[in-house]
Amino acid sequence: MAKRILLDMDGVMADVYQNLINLEYRNSGRRISYRDLEGNNVLTYFPNLSEMLHQKGFFRNLPLMAGAQEGTEYLNSKYDLYIVTAAVKLPDSMIEKYEWLQENFPYIRPQQMIFCGSKIPVCGDIMIDDHPKNLYPFCGERILFTQPNNIHMDFPDFVRINSWKDIDTLL
Amino acid sequence: MAKRILLDMDGVMADVYQNLINLEYRNSGRRISYRDLEGNNVLTYFPNLSEMLHQKGFFRNLPLMAGAQEGTEYLNSKYDLYIVTAAVKLPDSMIEKYEWLQENFPYIRPQQMIFCGSKIPVCGDIMIDDHPKNLYPFCGERILFTQPNNIHMDFPDFVRINSWKDIDTLL
Repeated sequence: MAKRILLDMDGVMADVYQNLINLEYRNSGRRISYRDLEGNNVLTYFPNLSEMLHQKGFFRNLPLMAGAQEGTEYLNSKYDLYIVTAAVKLPDSMIEKYEWLQENFPYIRPQQMIFCGSKIPVCGDIMIDDHPKNLYPFCGERILFTQPNNIHMDFPDFVRINSWKDIDTLL
Repeated sequence: MAKRILLDMDGVMADVYQNLINLEYRNSGRRISYRDLEGNNVLTYFPNLSEMLHQKGFFRNLPLMAGAQEGTEYLNSKYDLYIVTAAVKLPDSMIEKYEWLQENFPYIRPQQMIFCGSKIPVCGDIMIDDHPKNLYPFCGERILFTQPNNIHMDFPDFVRINSWKDIDTLL
C-alpha cells in the first residue's frame, strides 16, 4: 500500500510571499525582496497583512511555486496524496483554494483535499510543510520546505528541502 | 489527555433529511415522511436531490437535530472535539457549513473544524457518524447515529445510538 503524504499548500505549492510582495508594491510602491523577509517578522514588511489575506481573490490568484505542478503530479502517481491546508481561520479562502487546486492541479480529486483549522488530527506517513508548528506534532516523517519564515532556523528533527527539485530526489 | 472525538455534521448535528422534505414539499407539493425514507433510496423520493444539495443556502439553513446544541456543548467540554464533515464534493457548502457552525455552535473554534473529501486520514479515538462508509475504515470506537439511510441495517461492529440523548448517556 502506498505511503500517505500530507502536502501543504501555502508556501509549498503556492507562492504566498510572492503574492504579498506583488500586492505591497501595488498598494504602497514599496519593493520588498525575499531576502528582506528572511528570518524577519513579516508584519514589519507587510503592515496590512491581515487585510491582504482577507482581500477577495488573494488565494484564488496565488502564483505557483517553481516545479510544484510537476512535483505534485509525481507525488500523486507514487503516493497516497492528500492536500492539507489550514484554511478555516480565513473561511472565504476555502472556495478560492479549491478553485485554485482545480485549475492548477486538475488530477487532484476533491476526496484528496482537506481544509482544516489545525492539522493535528490528520494522520499520514510523511508531512511536507513550511511551518514547524505543523510538523512538530506529526508522528511520521517530517519534511520542512524552506521559506523565508524558517530559513534561518535549525530543526534537527526535520529533513529540510529547498525546492521541488529536492522532493523529486528525496521521495 | 482528553480523548479525541470526530463528530459528523450532516445527519448528526444538522437535520439534512428534514431540509430535503421541506424543499420537496415546497417544490412539488409532495409530502414525504421520515418513515418513507427508511431503508429506501433517497433518489426515489427526491428525484432532484443533486439540484437541491447544490442550491444556494441549502447547508446554511439546515435545521438542528434535536439536542445537538446541548449535546455538542457537553462533548466539547469533556473531549478533544473536532467537527469533521465531507464537504469538498460540494465546495460551496464549505462556507455555508462554517457560518452555520458559527451561528449555532459559537463555542466551536475554527481550529476544531475539518472540511474534507474523505475522512480516512482524520484520526481520533471516537467517531460519531451516520454513514457506515465513514465508520468502517476508522480505527477507534465507532458510533453509528441512526438516520433513515441506516435504520434497517445491522452493524455488529458499531455502537448504534438513536438520538443525542443516547450520546449523553454513552459518553
